[in-house]
Amino acid sequence: MTLPDTVTLVEVGPRDGLQNEKATIALADKVRLIDDLAAAGHTVIEAGSFVNPKWVPQMADSEAVFAALTRRPGVRYVALTPNLKGFERALAAGADEIAVFAAASEGFSQKNINCSVAESLERFAPVATAAREAGLPVRGYVSCVLGCPYDGDIPPEQVAKVTGALLDMGCYEVSLGDTIGTGTAGSMARLLDTLLASYRAEQLAVHCHDTYGQALANILVALQHGIATVDASVAGLGGCPYARGATGNVATEDVVYMLQGLGIDCGLDLDALVRAGARISRALGREPASRAARALLAREN
Amino acid sequence: MTLPDTVTLVEVGPRDGLQNEKATIALADKVRLIDDLAAAGHTVIEAGSFVNPKWVPQMADSEAVFAALTRRPGVRYVALTPNLKGFERALAAGADEIAVFAAASEGFSQKNINCSVAESLERFAPVATAAREAGLPVRGYVSCVLGCPYDGDIPPEQVAKVTGALLDMGCYEVSLGDTIGTGTAGSMARLLDTLLASYRAEQLAVHCHDTYGQALANILVALQHGIATVDASVAGLGGCPYARGATGNVATEDVVYMLQGLGIDCGLDLDALVRAGARISRALGREPASRAARALLAREN
Repeated sequence: MTLPDTVTLVEVGPRDGLQNEKATIALADKVRLIDDLAAAGHTVIEAGSFVNPKWVPQMADSEAVFAALTRRPGVRYVALTPNLKGFERALAAGADEIAVFAAASEGFSQKNINCSVAESLERFAPVATAAREAGLPVRGYVSCVLGCPYDGDIPPEQVAKVTGALLDMGCYEVSLGDTIGTGTAGSMARLLDTLLASYRAEQLAVHCHDTYGQALANILVALQHGIATVDASVAGLGGCPYARGATGNVATEDVVYMLQGLGIDCGLDLDALVRAGARISRALGREPASRAARALLAREN
Repeated sequence: MTLPDTVTLVEVGPRDGLQNEKATIALADKVRLIDDLAAAGHTVIEAGSFVNPKWVPQMADSEAVFAALTRRPGVRYVALTPNLKGFERALAAGADEIAVFAAASEGFSQKNINCSVAESLERFAPVATAAREAGLPVRGYVSCVLGCPYDGDIPPEQVAKVTGALLDMGCYEVSLGDTIGTGTAGSMARLLDTLLASYRAEQLAVHCHDTYGQALANILVALQHGIATVDASVAGLGGCPYARGATGNVATEDVVYMLQGLGIDCGLDLDALVRAGARISRALGREPASRAARALLAREN
């Protein structure tokens, strides 16, 4: 197996994770989580999002989160911004990097952000320009790359088109989201074979959901394709809004356990990460959705 | 990726799974489970074990299970037999195949079956001879191949030695058990690289536990090494006796979902399998421990 020597983990728990949790999370718990994650070794943390609080009430306090977190040198605190207004709030809040979010499928784009894929890309263009002028890196997300709850299977070429548009717009990296977790090692390999014909592995990240239990196998395939940036959510925060009782984001602890076993350096302290996940899970009144975390915590009991 | 075209799944839920469940399972539920699994397309089903009921009370009714199940042509019903006495009971009950169980680690062998690895192999020799005389194939298990709860890390060479002894004794196949689920894609690759230097892929199967969430990634590595026989437990039956609250055997549904995504034929009807897992899970009073099953069942609600 040819694998990257090091992998950068993008911790999405405080934003993509908490955004999809039913329970209301106190500001102090969010800030503590972010500080815990930075202390555990994370260098890229999605800390909040500047969207209309009417649509995403869980992220209404993102200004306060950015104001209260303890900045740790070497850590980038990322904010999701859907439009220029959101970008200006993110800039004022002191975000180090911004993220924009497009879909590979028309169905998901319409239902999720109420516009076509092309329209969403048009909206991001001024955000990308403003970010460049402000000296902030921009990360692109493409959702539903391995399946859409409305449109079903998504051809890899469709993902390549949206990925290319985001890169052309100035995104330094595009994160490929298996939003509903239906992807497998087979569909991930086919997608990456297509994308790597046009783009470099350094321009791509994977963002896998574990809804069907496939996330780690899919991430392994991505590593075998040279992808060295992986999104993950501590304690599997986020659940799955599309299937009740199902799991959502892959748990960072499970990814770190695999990377350590593969001898791949990701700079994380697994024990500290497990403790961070256990703390926020207690605040949510449930067990961490990470199997590695549960096994490691069970050892202590 | 070079992968096998077809994979044989060995369904271990009714034996390895139920044996490790706390709840008492009615004979009728066991029989229904086995019949459901055969109807879903399984061709190899571990249906019971003939051991001292004092040690494994859940399997005390294996004679009755074998007597009550509906034999389906093309399905092999396997029984675990620790010694000659157990073998004779299995033979009388009409088992199609028997399985013997050794450990890669001295610590586990002593705690689990109260003898050294060498002594356990000596005990199996007459069982293997008797099986050969009776025309019954013998499958060998080696447990703790990627880690032992007592001895820690296990050198691949130690696994190779026990595997070789079982093959020499007449086992047609040896199933490599990651009993505590601590293995990763890295340690699985190293183990198989060592074993495949001496043995053919057709002589080996993998038996992964999902305690640390690594099972599917580890199975993918095994497939990439040419291994085409995979043990799995419907609904993840079995839990993990070594870590409370942790998961045990990899769920068959999750494996089938991955295999189908890889275009690998395993002859299973996933929907029928999910229903079989949901039924036995209801009898146990809990949700299936398969993520794919939970996601597919959630779709229906």
